[in-house]
Amino acid sequence: MLKYQQIAEEIETYIEEHDLQQGDKLPVLETLMAQFEVSKSTITKSLDLLEQKGAIFQLRGSGIFVRKHKRKGYISLLSNQGFKKDLEDFNVTSKVIELDVRKPTPEAAENLNIGIDVDIYYVKRVRYINGQTLCYEESYYNKSIVTYLNNEIVSHSIFHYIREGLGLKIGFSDLFLHVGQLNEEEAEYLGLEAGLPKLYIESIFHLTNGQPFDYSKISYNYEQSQFVVQANSFLL
Amino acid sequence: MLKYQQIAEEIETYIEEHDLQQGDKLPVLETLMAQFEVSKSTITKSLDLLEQKGAIFQLRGSGIFVRKHKRKGYISLLSNQGFKKDLEDFNVTSKVIELDVRKPTPEAAENLNIGIDVDIYYVKRVRYINGQTLCYEESYYNKSIVTYLNNEIVSHSIFHYIREGLGLKIGFSDLFLHVGQLNEEEAEYLGLEAGLPKLYIESIFHLTNGQPFDYSKISYNYEQSQFVVQANSFLL
Repeated sequence: MLKYQQIAEEIETYIEEHDLQQGDKLPVLETLMAQFEVSKSTITKSLDLLEQKGAIFQLRGSGIFVRKHKRKGYISLLSNQGFKKDLEDFNVTSKVIELDVRKPTPEAAENLNIGIDVDIYYVKRVRYINGQTLCYEESYYNKSIVTYLNNEIVSHSIFHYIREGLGLKIGFSDLFLHVGQLNEEEAEYLGLEAGLPKLYIESIFHLTNGQPFDYSKISYNYEQSQFVVQANSFLL
Repeated sequence: MLKYQQIAEEIETYIEEHDLQQGDKLPVLETLMAQFEVSKSTITKSLDLLEQKGAIFQLRGSGIFVRKHKRKGYISLLSNQGFKKDLEDFNVTSKVIELDVRKPTPEAAENLNIGIDVDIYYVKRVRYINGQTLCYEESYYNKSIVTYLNNEIVSHSIFHYIREGLGLKIGFSDLFLHVGQLNEEEAEYLGLEAGLPKLYIESIFHLTNGQPFDYSKISYNYEQSQFVVQANSFLL
């Protein structure tokens, strides 16, 4: 972790621990520079990172303010970490239905940008939150990148393993959201009736070099899943 | 618009016009500096902005690459612009059902951070895409900020008017996503059966100073709405 990322994390922890609320003012730039003993450019990078994450907002000439929505229990759509991090306060578990090496479907090959004759790890899981079904998930991992998976790993956090175990650098992701109705198979795994609503998310995760390594199709139990997106002025 | 924002826009237009694809390499930093006749810090800010928007990715030591998902017809969840911009290629229209000045519901007052005795503009609309229903929308605007609205304005882009007509600076937004089933009223407006799925988004838009000015509740026609989120490594 780089210095500015570390400082960003410390500021975030400070906001958390002191239970600061939206609109609460943080110390001015000069004070933060002195406090962390870093240059203006480093602290600026830390603050820009926090602004991108939706943790603060900066108002030119007025100061740096805490940004925090009031709602609890929402999963952040903009975290690349997988659930474990967002749902730390909850008890999230996984049941592995299938795990094997096979060839990708044409759809998976297209989204992973590989040929249909390339080996992939196929993982089918049901995930639970506080004992209730959260989602039904089918994932395709490019085996030439994610070289090894086993039951133990996919029962826990695959992303944690990819980062820490395989030492891969996870970059950006594309998420495609649809709303639809549960089919028989999904309904059965989620313990719901077919025809009930689902949030269906296709996600493609890339390494920092732009190579896609994970294509997942996830159907969420609509009763359990609520998401939050904190968008920035940057994107205007 | 600041210089670095303008350059970012020009680079984006260049990518668009030359139909560059994901992974295509852009000129190196020095070339871009020379081309736009700006300092390293300005071009760095432009590139960081483009990275935040999901238009490029930067790989230290390797270069600057185009980022572009392959799917058409998805609404970006991270644009604060309202639909008009994302759906430029489509024909989006609005039908105004109600527009008046009233007191907020307790829920709206809470989300707008105002008292229940403060005047708000209440707007109820149905929006159409290529002649089919896209969403049913109830919005509450803090009247002390959004001082004037009329039928003509709310039939078109309210955000365009807020920015250009009222000269307000729109900052960040919080979006809360749920999936549920259409109630009778929503179903009727959307021309669907009650009980069918809906994507329900509550959004709170803030000025750059952090003051919320718009609380909206939007129910999407699940047949018409597909969303994309381009997430960044920044958020890891």
